[in-house]
Amino acid sequence: MDRYAILVAGGKGLRMGSDIPKQFLPLRGRPVLMHTIDVFRRTYPDIHIILVLPREQQDYWRQLCGQHDYDVELCVADGGETRFHSVHNGLSLIPDDARGVVGVHDGVRPFVSPETIRRCYEAAEECGAVVPVVPVVETVRQVLADGGSMTVDRNAYRLVQTPQTFDIQLLKKAYGQPFDPFFTDDASVVEAMGHPIKLVEGNNENIKLTNPADLKLAEGMV
Amino acid sequence: MDRYAILVAGGKGLRMGSDIPKQFLPLRGRPVLMHTIDVFRRTYPDIHIILVLPREQQDYWRQLCGQHDYDVELCVADGGETRFHSVHNGLSLIPDDARGVVGVHDGVRPFVSPETIRRCYEAAEECGAVVPVVPVVETVRQVLADGGSMTVDRNAYRLVQTPQTFDIQLLKKAYGQPFDPFFTDDASVVEAMGHPIKLVEGNNENIKLTNPADLKLAEGMV
Repeated sequence: MDRYAILVAGGKGLRMGSDIPKQFLPLRGRPVLMHTIDVFRRTYPDIHIILVLPREQQDYWRQLCGQHDYDVELCVADGGETRFHSVHNGLSLIPDDARGVVGVHDGVRPFVSPETIRRCYEAAEECGAVVPVVPVVETVRQVLADGGSMTVDRNAYRLVQTPQTFDIQLLKKAYGQPFDPFFTDDASVVEAMGHPIKLVEGNNENIKLTNPADLKLAEGMV
Repeated sequence: MDRYAILVAGGKGLRMGSDIPKQFLPLRGRPVLMHTIDVFRRTYPDIHIILVLPREQQDYWRQLCGQHDYDVELCVADGGETRFHSVHNGLSLIPDDARGVVGVHDGVRPFVSPETIRRCYEAAEECGAVVPVVPVVETVRQVLADGGSMTVDRNAYRLVQTPQTFDIQLLKKAYGQPFDPFFTDDASVVEAMGHPIKLVEGNNENIKLTNPADLKLAEGMV
């Protein structure tokens, strides 16, 4: 049984108010993406890593690897127009007859814990489709069509993290479907085929570095 | 017109895996609560601060103030059994004939920005009831009664921060209602009287220090 991880790093970094795409920004001196790759390799040393990067960033990535003496075996796939297309490209590098589990993870979530990764991959062996989730700490309001809003019961909601983890054959079949704007994450693509999604516990540290504030936050974590 | 801030610091700190309640934990050497108080004072130097603390923590707070030469004029109210009761106690220290705006803020949100505070207080002068919100970055799933779950449109939801800010007389009237377990935040108490709540933009850094991971995150922020 093989294990794959598709690390999607498509961010143009515009939201970070920086010219450097956020996956390359330094976290205690090393690019975010190297931290992320290393957690997967520490958890499963024999895991196959597929890095999805916009084509125009691939030279820069190789340059960073040289600068940091980062010599890790991995495949690089081209980023696509949307996340769906990026994951599709990454999946196409997995052999058609591969058997096992693949996790799709945001390159800008370097704080995923080995325990979260293990929970996802182990549950996916059993049931085929798994996402890690955390409870909602904040009060949640739903915005209504009339412009008003109402408090909803936050206990009925979960925030979804990654790695979203699947049986390889199931995910390949799911990504064979035509693109639909309703596909907001990998689970929604699998769900569109009628396959149920199992929720497992994520970890609170596993934040997505999205805003400039997140990177300041992140400096405290490493 | 007067401005008040009720800072609620009822946390027993159990979730932080520490014996020190989280509002007192050091952030770059100073208790979290002092950082929080200082943002409000920097924003509105003439604001009246009411600190709500469990009675058994009040001596410890005074001791910390001594240690840190923290000599700020504020009133202390006793924490209650629930957040509703704590806010009720804080409100009772505001004179019955006071006119103006009161914000209710979590003591463990030291990263609220002066801009967020101003947006809340200014909007509350206009419309009486305001909460700061941020968009949901993560995918959201709703847990269903049958144990399954489904993706919902995250664009329809907002995460609610504090300070939740109100016309003083309106909030006093709202907290005159009997306690209801449905009251999960101050806005829900005001809403129960049929008063609409206006949403303004919060700031992403304005996280609630809830889990041990948050304090590690927070160290990067100051």
